[in-house]
Amino acid sequence: MEPRVGFVGLGIMGQPMALNLVKAGFAVNCWNRTAARMEPVVQAGGLAAESPAHVAELSDITITMVRDSPDVEAVVLGRKGIIEGARAKAVLIDMSTISPQVTREIAARLKERDVQMLDAPVSGGDVGAREGTLSIMVGGEQEVFERCRPVFEALGKTITYCGPTGAGQTVKLCNQVVCGLNILAMSEGLLFGAKAGVDLRVMHQAISAGAASSWMLTNLAPKVLDRDFAPGFMVDLQQKDLKLALEAARECSATLPGTALVHQLFAALQAHGEGQEGTQALVKALERLAKVEVKA
Amino acid sequence: MEPRVGFVGLGIMGQPMALNLVKAGFAVNCWNRTAARMEPVVQAGGLAAESPAHVAELSDITITMVRDSPDVEAVVLGRKGIIEGARAKAVLIDMSTISPQVTREIAARLKERDVQMLDAPVSGGDVGAREGTLSIMVGGEQEVFERCRPVFEALGKTITYCGPTGAGQTVKLCNQVVCGLNILAMSEGLLFGAKAGVDLRVMHQAISAGAASSWMLTNLAPKVLDRDFAPGFMVDLQQKDLKLALEAARECSATLPGTALVHQLFAALQAHGEGQEGTQALVKALERLAKVEVKA
Repeated sequence: MEPRVGFVGLGIMGQPMALNLVKAGFAVNCWNRTAARMEPVVQAGGLAAESPAHVAELSDITITMVRDSPDVEAVVLGRKGIIEGARAKAVLIDMSTISPQVTREIAARLKERDVQMLDAPVSGGDVGAREGTLSIMVGGEQEVFERCRPVFEALGKTITYCGPTGAGQTVKLCNQVVCGLNILAMSEGLLFGAKAGVDLRVMHQAISAGAASSWMLTNLAPKVLDRDFAPGFMVDLQQKDLKLALEAARECSATLPGTALVHQLFAALQAHGEGQEGTQALVKALERLAKVEVKA
Repeated sequence: MEPRVGFVGLGIMGQPMALNLVKAGFAVNCWNRTAARMEPVVQAGGLAAESPAHVAELSDITITMVRDSPDVEAVVLGRKGIIEGARAKAVLIDMSTISPQVTREIAARLKERDVQMLDAPVSGGDVGAREGTLSIMVGGEQEVFERCRPVFEALGKTITYCGPTGAGQTVKLCNQVVCGLNILAMSEGLLFGAKAGVDLRVMHQAISAGAASSWMLTNLAPKVLDRDFAPGFMVDLQQKDLKLALEAARECSATLPGTALVHQLFAALQAHGEGQEGTQALVKALERLAKVEVKA
């Protein structure tokens, strides 16, 4: 029998993910702080629960997809939290991006009740969530991971088992470290080209095929040249992830000077009220420093 | 009639490029400071000249492929330099990576003698030079560029006209700025993962397909994990290019804080006598900071 799946957190990522689970044939129970966000899931055939605890009561596997570490702690360990409703042998899959250390603490609390936990943060954004093409990085016991594989396959395309509890979060944070610096690379290349007076579209085309190539250069540089700062991925969320990465790096004494710089430059965007723009807005911080506008 | 092509500078890049010109049917005259490097070109059917001036006397188009700005100045403007031998309407194509400003100065000097100049730095390394698959970024008058196109087509695959004199060099330096920060991105991701204790090959595989992807992550990270620091592209050459980029950036008031950091970290490698290693050795600077070795 298909496991019954609970879903807590129906935001821009969670709602389409829950809908994909319904589409894949799972019995889905959901809960969201803003109740209206449950309606599309209910209309598709899901069930609206009363609380995270209630979701867990109704489900074999409960997924959380919320913003940050304290939000996961609240819906799992807080009043009417998942821990109150989850039965023995149930599984919690946290697909939020949060602290690896907090993940290990929550997993230990759940284990006392014989509830298993997987950390399974994703990349691929809201497009990946809608299309079911997310990349999912999973930490926890491998046997539990294998048991939950059908659920992951309904949500993502690249599913990687990364190691013990917290390893999924750590790999996700490595991903965000690389992304942040690749965005800075793209931004400094464009800024230099703009100041030096070359045709930026020609420059972009000339360097995009070779050793300078990156997903960020291919996908975000054209947006900058069109002055399109609408979010694919929001500055505020990138900042939250870089904060988690730098905290985790401090805990294990990893030295990340470039990432620290990227974090500061994104903070400068937030100071200008641009936290809800896309991460390609990083170029604006450099533009202000150098008194130029990057456009083509 | 095919133009006669001169080639000055038969190093690790220049020698295979000259051979490709011979193979393409051009009459090639060459000169190199170390005479022995001319032998393979002569054996293939080229002609060894006495000096850069002599090369220019024998050629309609003369290519220079040397290390840095002073080397180009020496072989073009120095004693027995190209300017002494070049006839009116001849073309100099400088394929070295040098200062855009020095490029403009040399072009102005040549113009006084009615000699045209194109700056045409390349990327793609010694492999691209041997296989004739270089990416070539060209600055100068467009009409001269079109006239020289058959020569470029014998040497490279992606040939981009970038704009007036110096634009090729500027685009190449933009390329190097992006490359440098993409190497730092790859290095910080690996260092963080190593310190945090995740399986680095699993991590690399998980993040390589998505938004963190780059040529550097795909091609250099596996070398780091194998502790292979043999040069694809050497730290000393990357440093030379970043020095040119930061000098050009200063001249046009471009602010490149990340590139400055990358330049400093590469300098730390040079302090350890690692200038002849590949650019993936950047991770070693971070390893020393954080007291860890990145391997899998």
